[in-house]
Parts: sequence; C-alpha cells; structure tokens
Amino acid sequence: MKREERKPNKEKIKIIPLGGLEQIGMNITAFEYEDSIIVVDCGLAFPDEDMLGIDLVIPDTTYLKENIDKVKGFVITHGHEDHIGAIPYVLSEINVPIYATKLTLGIIEGKLKEHNLTKSVKRKVVKYGQSINLGCFRVEFIRTNHSIADAAALAIFSPAGVIVHTGDFKIDYTPVFGDAIDLTRFGELGKKGVLALMCDSTNVLREGFTMSEKTVGKTFDHIFAENTNRRIIIATFASNVDRVQQIINTAYKYGRKVIIEGRSMVNVITTASELGYINIPENTLIDIDSMKNYPDEQIVLITTGSQGESMAALSRMAASIHKKVTINPGDTVILSSSPIPGNEKSVSRVINELTRKGANVIFQDTHVSGHACQEEIKLIYSLVKPMYSIPAHGEYRHLKKQGELAVTMGVAPENVMILSSGDVLEIGEESAKIVDRVQAGGILVDGLGVGDVGNIVLRDRQNLAENGIIIVVMTLEKYSNQLLAGPDIVTRGFVYVRESENLIDEAKQVVTDAVTDCIDNRVSDWGKIKMVVKDSLSDYLWKKMKRSPMILPIIMEVK
Amino acid sequence: MKREERKPNKEKIKIIPLGGLEQIGMNITAFEYEDSIIVVDCGLAFPDEDMLGIDLVIPDTTYLKENIDKVKGFVITHGHEDHIGAIPYVLSEINVPIYATKLTLGIIEGKLKEHNLTKSVKRKVVKYGQSINLGCFRVEFIRTNHSIADAAALAIFSPAGVIVHTGDFKIDYTPVFGDAIDLTRFGELGKKGVLALMCDSTNVLREGFTMSEKTVGKTFDHIFAENTNRRIIIATFASNVDRVQQIINTAYKYGRKVIIEGRSMVNVITTASELGYINIPENTLIDIDSMKNYPDEQIVLITTGSQGESMAALSRMAASIHKKVTINPGDTVILSSSPIPGNEKSVSRVINELTRKGANVIFQDTHVSGHACQEEIKLIYSLVKPMYSIPAHGEYRHLKKQGELAVTMGVAPENVMILSSGDVLEIGEESAKIVDRVQAGGILVDGLGVGDVGNIVLRDRQNLAENGIIIVVMTLEKYSNQLLAGPDIVTRGFVYVRESENLIDEAKQVVTDAVTDCIDNRVSDWGKIKMVVKDSLSDYLWKKMKRSPMILPIIMEVK
Repeated sequence: MKREERKPNKEKIKIIPLGGLEQIGMNITAFEYEDSIIVVDCGLAFPDEDMLGIDLVIPDTTYLKENIDKVKGFVITHGHEDHIGAIPYVLSEINVPIYATKLTLGIIEGKLKEHNLTKSVKRKVVKYGQSINLGCFRVEFIRTNHSIADAAALAIFSPAGVIVHTGDFKIDYTPVFGDAIDLTRFGELGKKGVLALMCDSTNVLREGFTMSEKTVGKTFDHIFAENTNRRIIIATFASNVDRVQQIINTAYKYGRKVIIEGRSMVNVITTASELGYINIPENTLIDIDSMKNYPDEQIVLITTGSQGESMAALSRMAASIHKKVTINPGDTVILSSSPIPGNEKSVSRVINELTRKGANVIFQDTHVSGHACQEEIKLIYSLVKPMYSIPAHGEYRHLKKQGELAVTMGVAPENVMILSSGDVLEIGEESAKIVDRVQAGGILVDGLGVGDVGNIVLRDRQNLAENGIIIVVMTLEKYSNQLLAGPDIVTRGFVYVRESENLIDEAKQVVTDAVTDCIDNRVSDWGKIKMVVKDSLSDYLWKKMKRSPMILPIIMEVK
Repeated sequence: MKREERKPNKEKIKIIPLGGLEQIGMNITAFEYEDSIIVVDCGLAFPDEDMLGIDLVIPDTTYLKENIDKVKGFVITHGHEDHIGAIPYVLSEINVPIYATKLTLGIIEGKLKEHNLTKSVKRKVVKYGQSINLGCFRVEFIRTNHSIADAAALAIFSPAGVIVHTGDFKIDYTPVFGDAIDLTRFGELGKKGVLALMCDSTNVLREGFTMSEKTVGKTFDHIFAENTNRRIIIATFASNVDRVQQIINTAYKYGRKVIIEGRSMVNVITTASELGYINIPENTLIDIDSMKNYPDEQIVLITTGSQGESMAALSRMAASIHKKVTINPGDTVILSSSPIPGNEKSVSRVINELTRKGANVIFQDTHVSGHACQEEIKLIYSLVKPMYSIPAHGEYRHLKKQGELAVTMGVAPENVMILSSGDVLEIGEESAKIVDRVQAGGILVDGLGVGDVGNIVLRDRQNLAENGIIIVVMTLEKYSNQLLAGPDIVTRGFVYVRESENLIDEAKQVVTDAVTDCIDNRVSDWGKIKMVVKDSLSDYLWKKMKRSPMILPIIMEVK
C-alpha cells in the first residue's frame, strides 16, 4: 500500500481483546504501551442456551486488575449493552474515568445510578473531532452512524502509529438525527498513514450497502396510510432512538397520540429526550393510563419485545398477561426488527399468539441493520488504507471473511490478524505477532453471584435439566453401620411419581439390596457404599428405561 | 365458486387433527364417517427447547384407541419423520394396515424392523393413480413433488364429498427423479367438485414459486468446477434422495468417488437404491475406510448434519471427534440446506468450527425448499376449486395466511376452517363447524418412557436447570423428635461449593436455627418442619444472592 515517505517507526504497542473479538457481545479491548493502558468499550454478553440459569456474562478483567496502575480510562464507542453493559461490574473494581459522547454517557449514567456508582466514577463527555490524552495515547472521537445516535469511531494515536477502531457502524448519508459519518476524517487519517484498522464485521457476509434508517420511515408512512382505522402497536429495540423518532414523526403526521411502554425503552427515550436526541412534538406523548380516553385509530403504542423476549411488553401483551394493554382483533402490530440468531422461534411464537388474537402482524420491510455491509467496509478500507487489518465484532467466520475483504483492498495477507480472547498482539510497523496470552473470557453472573457458577455447576444443571435427580438417603449407626432408617428415594424432574409407583418401589428394592449386601460384607467405607448404591441404581434405571438421572446418595450418621 | 349442477348432498363427515394441524411435526389426521375411520399420516415432532431431556414427541391417539373397531387403516403421504415417525409407537397399539407408495413404505419398513414390528403390521404399496377402499372411504394417491421421492397427495372420496389433501408438496416441472406433479388430476377432481382442500402451508408467507430441485444440480456443477483440487464434503438432509442423486451425478462427471456417511443417510440411501429410486454408477460409491486410498481431489463425502445437530457426522468432524474424517485446511464443505427455525445458532457454530480448521465453507445457494410458495398454492386452488379450505401443515400464522389466499381464490371467507389439535370438524356441503373436542396433542417420549414425563416433571427440570437444587437432610428420633443427625446440606447445580464455603456454612446455620426453633416449640408435624426449613432457607438465599434454587428438605426417622 502506497503511503507518504517518512522515518521508520520501530515502536510497538500491545492490543489485547479481553472479552473476545470473536464473539458478538462483551466488547472490551485493551491497548497498552509501557505504563499506559486504555480500554475501548466494556460490554456484556447474554448467555448462550447452554449457560443454564445464567443472567448475563461479563468480561474477565483480571489482566486490568493486575495492571491497575497503568489503566488510564475507558473509552466507549456507543451506548449498546454489548459495549457498555459491564461497566457497573468492572468499574466497581477498576475505578478509572470513562470517556464517551453525550448520549452514550447519558445511558451509562442510568446504569451507574442503578448500581449507586454515580458519585464514585468519573466521566467526561467528548465531542466528535475532540481528542483526549490518556497516558501515552491520544484518542480522537470520529462521527459514525449506527442504530443508536452518537456512535463514534476512535482514532487511537500511539507511539507505534495510529489505530482506527470503527466501533459498530454503518454509512448513512441521510441519518434521522445528526450528520452522516465523517468519511473525510477517515480519509485524512488514511493519507497520513494508519497502522491498523479494527472494523465491525457483523454484516461482512452481506453484499452491497445497508439502507438508510430513513427508508424505514417511508415504510411506516405507507403502513399508517393503509391502517387508518386501527390501533397501531410497534415493537422495536429499546435503544433505537432514531426508529422511535420516525414512529413519532409518522404518528404526528397522522394525528395519533404516542404511548411508550416497556421499562428499558422508557429509560432510553427519557434520557434521549432530556439530552435533545429526540424531538417529541407537544401533546403527542400520552401516558398509558390515558389510552382509554382515545379511540383506537388515534393511538400508536411503541414497545419493547420485538425479539420475542418472554418478559418484554409485547410478549406479555401477546400472552394476555400485560396489565394495561389487551390485543384486540383489528390491531395492527409491527415488529420493527430482524430476529437476532437464536431468537427466531420466540419471535414466531409471539407472532402466532398475536395472529390468534386477530391482530394483523407486519414483520417484514420495517427494519434496516445498523451495521455496514461489504461495500461500506470496503469504502472504509479504501479511505483508511491500513497496514494491518484486525477484524472486530463478529463470529470467527465473519472475522475471516473481513480478512479476505481486506486482502482484496490491498492489505498484505500476512497482515490480517484474527485475534481470540486473551491474545496479546504486539504490533508495530516492522512486525505484528501474538506474543502472549492473558486470562480473559467470560464470567457468569447469576443473581448477585459473579463468578460462583462455573463449568461443574453448569454441567450439573445440564444433567439435572435433561434427566432429573434421584436422591437416596439413609441413616446408619456409627461404628456398627446398622441401617437405622431408609434407604428412601426422593426424585425431582425424573418421572411423575404417582404414575410410576412400581418403578420407584423396585428402585428402592435395588438400593436396599445393595446396601444390605455392603453391610453384610462389613463394608464400612461410606464412599464405597455410596458408589455401590449409585452403580446398582444407575444400571437398573438404564436397563429399565434407558435414562441416566443424576443419582445422589446421602448417608446420615447417628451415634 | 361455479360448479356443475348436481343433487344436493346432505351427508357430513368428521375431520379430526390429532397431532395438531397447526404445528409442523406430528402430522396425523382422522377422517370419520359412521363406522369408518381412516388416518392420514402418523408423524412425530422433535421437542421444543423447553421440553428438557425429551427425545421426541408422538401424537396422543387415545381417540383412535377408543374407536379402534372403526379404524380401517393409515394412509401415508410421504416418508418424512413428521409424517411417519410415530408409526412404530402408534401401530404397536392400533394394529391396522398401512398404505403408502413404494419408497415411503420402504422407509417405514426400516422403522418397523428396528421395533420388531415387521411381522405384525400389514402394509400395502399403492401406485399413483391407484385407489384403495377403506370402509366408507376410497383414497386415491396422486403424484406430487417434494424433497423426497414418491410423495403423494390424496383424494379422499367420502359420502359427503371429496377431500383433497396435498401432503407436503411443491410443483417441480423438472424433477430429478420421476415426473412432475399430476396437475391434470387435481384439475379433473376440481371439475367434478371438491368439498375441501387441505393444503401445505409451510411456505405460504413466501411470494412466487419454489425453484426446481434441478437448479441445485447446476450450482453443484459450478462449485465442483471451481474446487477441482480440493476434497468436497457436502452435508444435507438424510432423506433428500434427489439431492444425493445430483451430488453423485456431479461427482461422476468430475471423476470423483463418493462416500456416504451418517447412519440415517446410509439407511435412506440404501433403501432408495434397493428400490430403484437412486441411480449410482458402478465404481462410484466407495467405503469410508477406502478414502485414504484416493487423493483429496477425487473424493466427495456426503454426510448428515447440515442443521448443526450436535451428534450428526458433520458436527463431529467439525469438533474433531469423528473417528474417520479429519477436516483439513483446503477442504471445501457445503451445507446444502437452510437452517430450520431454531437451528440457526447450531449451524453457525459448526460453520465457525469448520472455518477455524481452514475449511472453505459454502452455505448459500445450494438448497431449494420442498414446499410450495404462494403461486403454487394458488395454482392448486385454481385447479381444485374447493368449497372449503382447511389449511394444513404450518404454524397458526401460516394457516391464517393460507386462509386469506384461499379467499382471494374464491373460497367464501366463512368456509375457511382453521383447526387446532383435537377439534372435531363436521363438514358437508350444507355446513361446516367444530362440533366437539377430543383428547389429542403430544405425548413426550424420554428414553423408553412414553408419557411418564409430564408438566410437573418438566417444570421441575426447568427449575433445576436454572437454579440447581439444595437438599437439606436430617434424622429425627421418633416420638421425641430429637435431632439425631444433621441438618446437612448438599447442593447440585447451585454454586461451586469450594469457593462458597461461607455461604454453605451460613445456610446450614439458618436451617439449624429453624429446626431447633421448631423442636423447642414442640412442632411434631414433619410437614410443618419441612415448610419452615424451606421458607427460612429460601428467604436467606434470596436476600443474600437473589437466587431461588429448588429446596428439598428430607427428614429421616429413627426409633
């Protein structure tokens, strides 16, 4: 790649993804040079289906804690959960300042408030074009477009060169709020020479260009025009302020009142409204309790639950357990989002329930993505002309694909760096390689417990979930090992006992025989007795029913 | 709808979906007139994600058992699991003859063999155009196209009129095997007058026309031409014989040997080959153990696992636990199917694992559906001109949409009948209405247990899965209620005990206090003691960790 001639730079910095570049969610990346570490984003992930009972997953920041004196601050690209959600957990241990744009910081404030951290955590609003100095680094915020306003790319100036991090972005020439992405600035940086580009890979498998958010507004207009006699209910992502703005605009045009329902949406829209990111005409917004004072055709209800989340407002309406909204035949319900992989079935379920109640459900053509497709990614590469490509934000196949795209855009194949969580990439103009691995990855949060549920516990939960548990309990006399009580059998999640009495009786007999055998043979080691009970019962159940419940023998001792 | 003039018919028959018209899977529908019942299809469903530990779901055929003297036989439309899978379970209790086309019956034979039922169950091959008499009914088999050969629609002649049941179908003017759907016959039936049409709704939300299976052959040709130096691995549905035929044709053209891997695929292809439904050129098929004798570029491996099923061959290859196939950099892997809703994440996982091993994964444009889109469904309506529409095979929203389509094709809106599992539809030229409900729906199969896992057990499994279990066990002296041993606490799936010793110690103290309190207060009712233990522990854990594990107090009694 042709660049202006200048002195060779022998410096190197370290780039360390801590939550995992290679998965959506838990975006958190450390940049290190000598005594300075800065961290970009601090997101959480929602649990996979095999993380039973887990509420959320936060990044393992052991490395940051071990190097706490170096950590200068967190720089946040935008206000989505996978970029800010872990802040209250991480910042309560690593208390350094946070830097972000106004709306992003507004949303972070809400989180800090919930965790009583507003007083202890320092934070600073940064404007587009502005730079902040953090130790050896300087970070410039660059305007981008995304499915939430105030998204920023970062130009990270380091002794080893400039790294451009796009954050999550798309290119929207006609955004609903604010201006189009600052392509010129990307180009200026490219002209001066960029060491590495870390670019969003979410939509890299899609050809072409992501449509402007404004196109959704036109679709709303058509739908409102065709549904003038009906109540309109629209579900979308709580954080998509621009989408909500367009719904409000259309509602205003058609003389409808707007109700916003769903806790997370009310939170975000309140913040956006206070900070001037959404413009709500007077007398348009009404309280949900006032809905009854208006006829259906004058109402638009904007709500959460477009992903079929079981506790969200739309799902509760569909299941007839929402306290204030009943779906009626004739309602038009719009799902203004695409199902995130894994949510397809839940979304279908909600659509079926709504349809069954007589609602007219519209779920196509009312969404555009917030992420760049191939042509947009290529445009960024053509402007930034990076020496290295470090694909960000995607599954492995996405990162791989972006690497291929980077090569077609002139990046040397050996300069494509695909990182995993914990990899320490040492990078400079002369070379880039993974020199170390540090502790990183996900920490499971269950209730108030952070990290007390690990692999063994999850494996137990999986086993319990699939097969249930049989508890065999007995009381033995100390020294003599006489059987004083039991063995009794208690089961949960195994079979419906009332209809399987014979089976339970037989199982009890199997266990009694095994225990009696042990006692007759003067086996005094309780571990041994437990093992014999477990094995004999397990054999019996497999032969009889081809099932393997968890078997838990408990022996009590009485003197 | 205009039809030829003829005498009014006052007869009525009953149509009873037993597995549920309104869900994919478990297709089974009874048709009843006086002393005759015939049953169309006998499928199983795979469990939803909330049916923890369940292997499969079969239809509740109580109604058929109660009317066993009337049941004349099962008529099967095609050989897919959701239409034949429950046969071994149902036929072992309701032993009546099975009627189906040759390949369909061949696949059923395999199932009967596994369950040692080949001798007891009567079965008869029916050819396209042929009719069978079953009590008051006559059933004619009509050629259709689908993603498995030998699929049939049924014309059910009854005293009340003709019902046309399409089975699962598409319209393929250039099928890989056999001829195109017999549209003329549909038209002839329509001319004479059809009472009701039961038509496949799977793809009713899609506009246009489903592409011919042959188009996939062309795509394979392009891929083979572009990958001449690489081993090619193709995963597809085990039952898609035509797809396998096309892969074999392409392999033959490019001078490659073919290996078939994966138990279910080997079974279906063996049956299809024996019955002449697939044509394998000599010396093309080789054994998997001979693979090592050929260079990569002369190999095509056809396998199961295109849906990311964790135990299927492709997933095992991707996870490096397949005994005979190792994925190498340079392999080209084709996923020749679209993810069925709910499987998206598993498919992504497999693609990521394959990509990480260096494979070139192709998963677009190598699949066409086996189900009719809107224009095909409209074509069938235009030929059959039914008086009633009874949409089949789909979720509620699909059935609803087909009803709307039927109305645009001239069916009176009040003549669209959307049925749920167990509905008894009484239908004749004069009227159609739901007159009764019978027991129907799904029976859960877990191991060898059929129906012994019900809602309570599943709710327990769900609770165990999300929160784990705490067992509190103690031994009391009879009469005196003295505490002889315990209370002890054992947990599974709750927390990692070694790191939560304090918590467990405190919990034990809470329980001990509660029990001591009971004993001091001379509470002798064990139920009461258990309740106090449960409540106090539950309170403590919620306050301390915001979690609600299942708590199971067990009291043993010693004299």
